[in-house]
Amino acid sequence: MAGSETKAGNASHPLTDDELVRMDAYWRAANYLSIGQIYLLDNPLLEEPLKLSHTKPRLLGHWGTAPGLNLIYVHLNRVIKARDLNMIYITGPGHGAPGILANTYLEGTYSEIYPSVSADRKGMTRLFRQFSFPGGIPSHTAPETPGSIHEGGELGYSLSHAFGAAFDNPDLIVACVVGDGEAEIGPAATAWHSNKFLNPASDGAVLPILHLNGYKIANPTVLARIGDRELLSLFAGYGYEPLLVDGQDPLVVHQAMAQKVDYALDRIRTIQEDARSGRASARPTWPMIILRTPKGWTCPPEVDGLKLEGYWRAHQVPFAELASKPEHLKLLEQWMKSYRPGELFDHNGSLKPELAELAPKGLRRMGANPHANGGLLMKNLQLPDYADYAMTVPLPGAVMGEATRRLGDFLRDVMIANRAQGNFRVFGPDETVSNRLGAILEATDRTWEAERFDYDDHLSPDGRVMEILSEHTCQGWLEGYLLTGRHGFFSCYEAFIHIVDSMFNQHAKWLKVSKEIPWRRPIASLNILLTSHVWRQDHNGFSHQDPGFIDHVVNKKASIVRVYLPPDANSLLYIADQCLRSRDKVNVIIAGKQPNPQWLDMDAAINHCRAGIGIWEWASNDQGSEPDVVMACAGDVPTIETLAAVEILDEHLPDLKVRVINVVDLMTLQPREEHPVGLSTRDFDTLFTTDRPIIFAFHGYPWLIHRLCYRRTNHDNLHVRGYKEEGTTTTPFDMAVLNDLDRFHLVMDVVDRVPSLGASGAYLKQRMRDRLTEHKRYIERVGQDMPDIRDWKWAGRQKTS
Amino acid sequence: MAGSETKAGNASHPLTDDELVRMDAYWRAANYLSIGQIYLLDNPLLEEPLKLSHTKPRLLGHWGTAPGLNLIYVHLNRVIKARDLNMIYITGPGHGAPGILANTYLEGTYSEIYPSVSADRKGMTRLFRQFSFPGGIPSHTAPETPGSIHEGGELGYSLSHAFGAAFDNPDLIVACVVGDGEAEIGPAATAWHSNKFLNPASDGAVLPILHLNGYKIANPTVLARIGDRELLSLFAGYGYEPLLVDGQDPLVVHQAMAQKVDYALDRIRTIQEDARSGRASARPTWPMIILRTPKGWTCPPEVDGLKLEGYWRAHQVPFAELASKPEHLKLLEQWMKSYRPGELFDHNGSLKPELAELAPKGLRRMGANPHANGGLLMKNLQLPDYADYAMTVPLPGAVMGEATRRLGDFLRDVMIANRAQGNFRVFGPDETVSNRLGAILEATDRTWEAERFDYDDHLSPDGRVMEILSEHTCQGWLEGYLLTGRHGFFSCYEAFIHIVDSMFNQHAKWLKVSKEIPWRRPIASLNILLTSHVWRQDHNGFSHQDPGFIDHVVNKKASIVRVYLPPDANSLLYIADQCLRSRDKVNVIIAGKQPNPQWLDMDAAINHCRAGIGIWEWASNDQGSEPDVVMACAGDVPTIETLAAVEILDEHLPDLKVRVINVVDLMTLQPREEHPVGLSTRDFDTLFTTDRPIIFAFHGYPWLIHRLCYRRTNHDNLHVRGYKEEGTTTTPFDMAVLNDLDRFHLVMDVVDRVPSLGASGAYLKQRMRDRLTEHKRYIERVGQDMPDIRDWKWAGRQKTS
Repeated sequence: MAGSETKAGNASHPLTDDELVRMDAYWRAANYLSIGQIYLLDNPLLEEPLKLSHTKPRLLGHWGTAPGLNLIYVHLNRVIKARDLNMIYITGPGHGAPGILANTYLEGTYSEIYPSVSADRKGMTRLFRQFSFPGGIPSHTAPETPGSIHEGGELGYSLSHAFGAAFDNPDLIVACVVGDGEAEIGPAATAWHSNKFLNPASDGAVLPILHLNGYKIANPTVLARIGDRELLSLFAGYGYEPLLVDGQDPLVVHQAMAQKVDYALDRIRTIQEDARSGRASARPTWPMIILRTPKGWTCPPEVDGLKLEGYWRAHQVPFAELASKPEHLKLLEQWMKSYRPGELFDHNGSLKPELAELAPKGLRRMGANPHANGGLLMKNLQLPDYADYAMTVPLPGAVMGEATRRLGDFLRDVMIANRAQGNFRVFGPDETVSNRLGAILEATDRTWEAERFDYDDHLSPDGRVMEILSEHTCQGWLEGYLLTGRHGFFSCYEAFIHIVDSMFNQHAKWLKVSKEIPWRRPIASLNILLTSHVWRQDHNGFSHQDPGFIDHVVNKKASIVRVYLPPDANSLLYIADQCLRSRDKVNVIIAGKQPNPQWLDMDAAINHCRAGIGIWEWASNDQGSEPDVVMACAGDVPTIETLAAVEILDEHLPDLKVRVINVVDLMTLQPREEHPVGLSTRDFDTLFTTDRPIIFAFHGYPWLIHRLCYRRTNHDNLHVRGYKEEGTTTTPFDMAVLNDLDRFHLVMDVVDRVPSLGASGAYLKQRMRDRLTEHKRYIERVGQDMPDIRDWKWAGRQKTS
Repeated sequence: MAGSETKAGNASHPLTDDELVRMDAYWRAANYLSIGQIYLLDNPLLEEPLKLSHTKPRLLGHWGTAPGLNLIYVHLNRVIKARDLNMIYITGPGHGAPGILANTYLEGTYSEIYPSVSADRKGMTRLFRQFSFPGGIPSHTAPETPGSIHEGGELGYSLSHAFGAAFDNPDLIVACVVGDGEAEIGPAATAWHSNKFLNPASDGAVLPILHLNGYKIANPTVLARIGDRELLSLFAGYGYEPLLVDGQDPLVVHQAMAQKVDYALDRIRTIQEDARSGRASARPTWPMIILRTPKGWTCPPEVDGLKLEGYWRAHQVPFAELASKPEHLKLLEQWMKSYRPGELFDHNGSLKPELAELAPKGLRRMGANPHANGGLLMKNLQLPDYADYAMTVPLPGAVMGEATRRLGDFLRDVMIANRAQGNFRVFGPDETVSNRLGAILEATDRTWEAERFDYDDHLSPDGRVMEILSEHTCQGWLEGYLLTGRHGFFSCYEAFIHIVDSMFNQHAKWLKVSKEIPWRRPIASLNILLTSHVWRQDHNGFSHQDPGFIDHVVNKKASIVRVYLPPDANSLLYIADQCLRSRDKVNVIIAGKQPNPQWLDMDAAINHCRAGIGIWEWASNDQGSEPDVVMACAGDVPTIETLAAVEILDEHLPDLKVRVINVVDLMTLQPREEHPVGLSTRDFDTLFTTDRPIIFAFHGYPWLIHRLCYRRTNHDNLHVRGYKEEGTTTTPFDMAVLNDLDRFHLVMDVVDRVPSLGASGAYLKQRMRDRLTEHKRYIERVGQDMPDIRDWKWAGRQKTS
């Protein structure tokens, strides 16, 4: 396309004069549109003198990072076209959405998805008006934004999302901008190490671009003030080849950027070709770009005598008070006109054709790339029949089993069945084997691109078990993997899942909004298995005991969140299968890894889990009548303690009618009006009665059950035991005792709530107190639980009515 | 002390032969005691052949990191003595507690604090038995551990704690071990940048020691597998001078370690002297040590034919099954005897005197250093009279004010009043000014040791406002600062405080246990101000809207947590003052920064906040009678909407008797049996009645109020409005509308709950629906709220009965 009059590009100046001029114009168009979105309601082309009525009464949005984001976008467009690349763009500083929206509008994607925002004056007016405007679109790169898989409102997760997107996508290049101080954030600071988990042969590439524009909200960024020596050393230390692009003169920066982007893509190609042809086996040093340009680049250098361009004041709206300061309105007009809109848009308001042709076409446009709408590409998992992994349970409680070990067998075969389509990985902070999911390692290795030694244990570059001691990175990788249309499973110590509370929030919010956007296709759910849970952290002690993630999760939209507490191995298998089939949800499964009595054969488990809640007839003796007491339980340890209590009651108070209810799907407890799986009032009342005492043994903090049930008829009779923040290094049973969740306390609770028991109740209560004293003495002498506690197995009810 | 026969030390071999031999013996003693704690119940000196009955039935604990921790401890002891240093030791891998406990026992601190664990055979037996044993002590460096301010159960926060301890402690050196994969964790990965915030003139020093022992639980660590070039480059990039100590031969490692530790301390002294004498102004390159030794160093190389020493298998209990495998018992005995206990302990079981003298004396011992029991050193803050900062509020609602701006004035003067004692800092992720606390910058600057330019805004090395875009680092610094006896204040966007959910958990757990330990002195509370809250994140949108931190906080022990929702500036001043005076708590204050009507003059604010909850008589018209409806509110925006609703009700239904209750201290809602500040049943019933409808407008998720009130008499009539996870970029009032918390919905709620209103109620409801429609149309046309909403001020009740 370069006319004969243009100087040809070369290695240090790869852009011809014509390219340079047109790319700069395209960049100016993106900048112009970015500002327009922040400021204007009307007069988008500034065809008439700018009046206050053309501007928004509330000015909302962020300018500072936009010119840099726009520069990167334009330069990526160039190489996508030149090299026919399959590329997506992750905007770390998602508040720079005006730039991303401008670019998806310029490339045509935006108008295709949102036809009313057309490529003309009228559409441009809509583009400007809708931004950060009631009834319009958000101020960040939200689900509404074409080409985005990353909201970026909360900084810190762009790089882990980018690597998650790149895994198993060998043709994809994920450009990821880290900027506006994001690099200071812990999860970002460790996510750079993801390059030790990326296989150049079978994964795609990530091109990180550190946008070092000097400032965050009101302060310099740390990395902008450490000098080039430390800066380059840091990224070399992270294992990258840093390429510095530095400048303030657009035309100089364009040439430098084009050169470094070309170099980076050459390096990526070479690295991939070497790995894929078997020429290289060592971990490559991937390129990354450090782009150092002024914050708010190209805005007025000063306003009201105060420094603006290249300073933190340009972070959000560079200047406001348009009504009270007419000179600001004038300044805005001058500023916008400095981009020479007449050169960029025709009289209809459409981008001029010689600029429009700079954008890639069709699905190569970053706003249209289907990887950023992962549901489009998602293939269903091939799932073996979970029933094949069932434990044989001839009678409830007759056998012992480790629930997560069974799950490991199932996941191993899920791994095998989907090896060919390469769309399943499991994630965890170094705990896959500790959580007894080790069978997966029979089918694949742990992903490891760093140094290996011959005595290493299941480490290889093409492993699909991803372990790094960073819950943030595990979660971020998985989110990126799911958002680009794949499937996964995250297992974590229960207490430390709180590390990703805020990431969970952001993902749940993304899913909630995505479901409201017609063009966003459903993606696989985020499945989190919490094991090594509160009741079995007796050896690590108090710091490892926290069941509160459920409380956090249930604050999010009912349409998004599910919480499962399968009581044994077969129910865990069924639930895991369901979770792997579900879409657009966050599923939290809590299941222990220790040997426990098994209650349900596969059929019983299926029926029980389908209902989500139910009476365990075989443990109850109220058949055909109203019970004297309802003993409810949710979670594996509470289930054991409840059944042990039932056995004690049966021995001592055989006439007491006890109904045992087990809850697998915690959300069934909520009213149907509040949650789609909630029980109707009638069903709840049928289960829990309307007037009998309920002793509820719960896995988590007890008040959560009240919060879910406070509208239920029989709530006043609901008495919940759970973790009340007592614990230390002790025995497993003592953990229950410290929190009054043990069988002895549960029996005492029953006695307290069924007044008719009289003297036999009082006698039993004293027995229980004696047993507790005996327990305490025993463990402090011997160091482990009493044999009849340790070896307890459900012997079945001795009598049923 | 070196005998004439020993070779003198020199620069590359600083230890004399005698020193070397004795230090190695001391180290062997620490290793021996570490193993003993994990394995033994009795026969501590192995004076008789080891029998199964001498060992613990459950083997719990972590060996892998202990020999490294012990080596470091011994070497720090040497320089503490040689240089009379004031030093504390932070154990990142807190599961290495056996090593720390061993060392505090060897140095004598442990027996002083716990006399029954005496420095003899009997005491050693107790030391072994109590570890990870029921009724004993935790498996981590918990509050029970002398010299510890860091539990280390959840990895990632050691470095930020260390820097927090060093700030304003110019004579203190904080040795901080980062190990067992902790460096992979996000918060740790960014905490290295704390060196850009440490002033060598007025702060102490941190000596980071990366213990690169190769493995975490079941995997290599990333940093152990990136090669020396990247490793050294990474830490040079973080701004340190890395000093590598690498080896497997103890005697060689001792010399190398001594040499590097000497060099590091020389460098620290030089850096400090240069800064303090004014010779240097540039940020120094602080030393750090990389100690590369085998995991589980000195344990058997193999067990059952599997690699053990230098491998992940040595992480926890290196081998177990002592009952079923007699050869394991034998191996344990051989292993322990390999340390030659007879050379280390005399026939009473006391450490031999020539070894004991290697430890520092008195408060120089790291287990006895008072900085690690910060309450010992804590000086009360000098607090100006908060009433001096009060807004004049002639009538409720008569004036507007920004609550946090007033607080800023107060905090500025707190800063000034405590400048001399240097024990107060404020922390926040780049939001101090944005949160309108900018007045503090009149008294001090932002801490900044990195590059500065002449146009920088309030940056200086001795600033006391600590801003880094890392909530983790802010929280970690503050925790370290508090735990060493100082005071602070953390302000944060409400949604993003979830980033530190897990850190909050750990700190709250630390406080809970500390309060149970007599020798731990009370420390200043952790004060968190949440502003830029859910209702005023209309401009940033959905990702910035999450009020769930309160839900998370209230799961922790009632004795530790407080949640305050002051409705205006004067109440915020009172609450802030109270929080700064309180001890051993986490105080969460939620208060907006926007201009809002002010309700209470200072006297009224004091009375209201002292009670924590109360009837606002001036807004109620039920004087002397039972109300028809109770309108309760908690939080600034809910208070405004409630009062606006009251005004509407007053105009349209003047005979309706309304009682307005405002809640400042959320914990008053809990029953007194559950929380020390909870209202008695009688007081609650007096306020809320036993049978009238309650419309409760709440700042957070509505179900939290139910969870707090479910046992209250009138709970069935409680109807709560709050954030129900709806939001986007819109107007402030529309945020309330989207969540049914606005005045119009509240009025409709009243109509729905007071059936006697009949036709006038129905008419009013229709009016409210019309107003909502009008609102929606207006904001989508104009882009801001209707003037009567925007400019609403409480005009007082037109009639009172």
